Amino acid sequence: MIKVYGMSLSGNCHKVRMVLEALHQPYSWTEIDPAKGETRTPEFLARNPNGKVPVVELEPGVYLAESNAIICYLAEGSPLMPADRLLRARVLAWLFFEQYSHEPYIAVARYLCLFHPDPPSQRALLESKMPGGYRALEVMEKTLADEPFLVDGRYTIADIGLYAYTHVASDGGFDLSRFTAIRDWLARVAAQPGYVAMVGP
Amino acid sequence: MIKVYGMSLSGNCHKVRMVLEALHQPYSWTEIDPAKGETRTPEFLARNPNGKVPVVELEPGVYLAESNAIICYLAEGSPLMPADRLLRARVLAWLFFEQYSHEPYIAVARYLCLFHPDPPSQRALLESKMPGGYRALEVMEKTLADEPFLVDGRYTIADIGLYAYTHVASDGGFDLSRFTAIRDWLARVAAQPGYVAMVGP
Repeated sequence: MIKVYGMSLSGNCHKVRMVLEALHQPYSWTEIDPAKGETRTPEFLARNPNGKVPVVELEPGVYLAESNAIICYLAEGSPLMPADRLLRARVLAWLFFEQYSHEPYIAVARYLCLFHPDPPSQRALLESKMPGGYRALEVMEKTLADEPFLVDGRYTIADIGLYAYTHVASDGGFDLSRFTAIRDWLARVAAQPGYVAMVGP
Repeated sequence: MIKVYGMSLSGNCHKVRMVLEALHQPYSWTEIDPAKGETRTPEFLARNPNGKVPVVELEPGVYLAESNAIICYLAEGSPLMPADRLLRARVLAWLFFEQYSHEPYIAVARYLCLFHPDPPSQRALLESKMPGGYRALEVMEKTLADEPFLVDGRYTIADIGLYAYTHVASDGGFDLSRFTAIRDWLARVAAQPGYVAMVGP
């Protein structure tokens, strides 16, 4: 059985849970709190030398890190990952977009508001995250205005990867009210079989 | 024939060139200068709504963005991309690591030093990039101390993806002298058949 080491309120970790639940794959979940230094212990660094959650243990002693690599692995051969070469690349393009052009703004803003020990001290940094976050949302809105899902008109791990932090973007101060296509898509994702909501530990 | 829209001195774009050259794949290269606004034109945004290079045109009207998604697509079925499910996921894990934990420090520092219109004004931002960049290099060093390449002991697109900015890390002020395993690996990559050096337009 797959073991997940993750933080339930982290979008990166929640992606892994969403895929496992959608695929009805049995798993165990070990809650890890980075704020308590639990990702910097020698034991954790042996699982992921980069010291970040999530990490999965696929079989005893076989670890895999990086949320989007994990969900690619888990979804292989399922309807959540296309078989076609170009469609697979389009899924990957959205997942790389997520890690470079979306997460560093939208997830970091949420982190500063929800998890930073002194959020008011972070106001300038938080403000600096807004334009990039709205740019990422505009790119998504443009695609979703014409398509029900991000790739090939069907639900894939591209949607799960982008959903994870978009559906909690308001935690970081992003206003989704003008992004009607994104809001409709969020509702479509939440209506998928096996959908699981983000909940605390 | 594949058309590449890229900036030759960008590591993200150079990855694409390295894979095409290693695979002896014919391509054309159109030089794009983001500093001149060439990634913000309506024509360019139709190719990549996120307004970034590289973008490839795989066949007329079929575009693919995100450097690491492009190299996954190009390498599919070649020795540069393993067929095994877990090894593929390990390649992806390194590529996501590159975009999240390496490029935003090492490539951005290089950008500030080489391409910013007023580098001295960016000293504080540059300094802020150093710890994260060295952390990424330490993660690489740890793996490469035991292995000749990043995944499965053989040359893959994980190496190309990480090589692109690591081999020019000194442009951003990073000192690689104590990273002996990385330096040996850089030499091994440069000795691969079909290796192509980064050159200006």
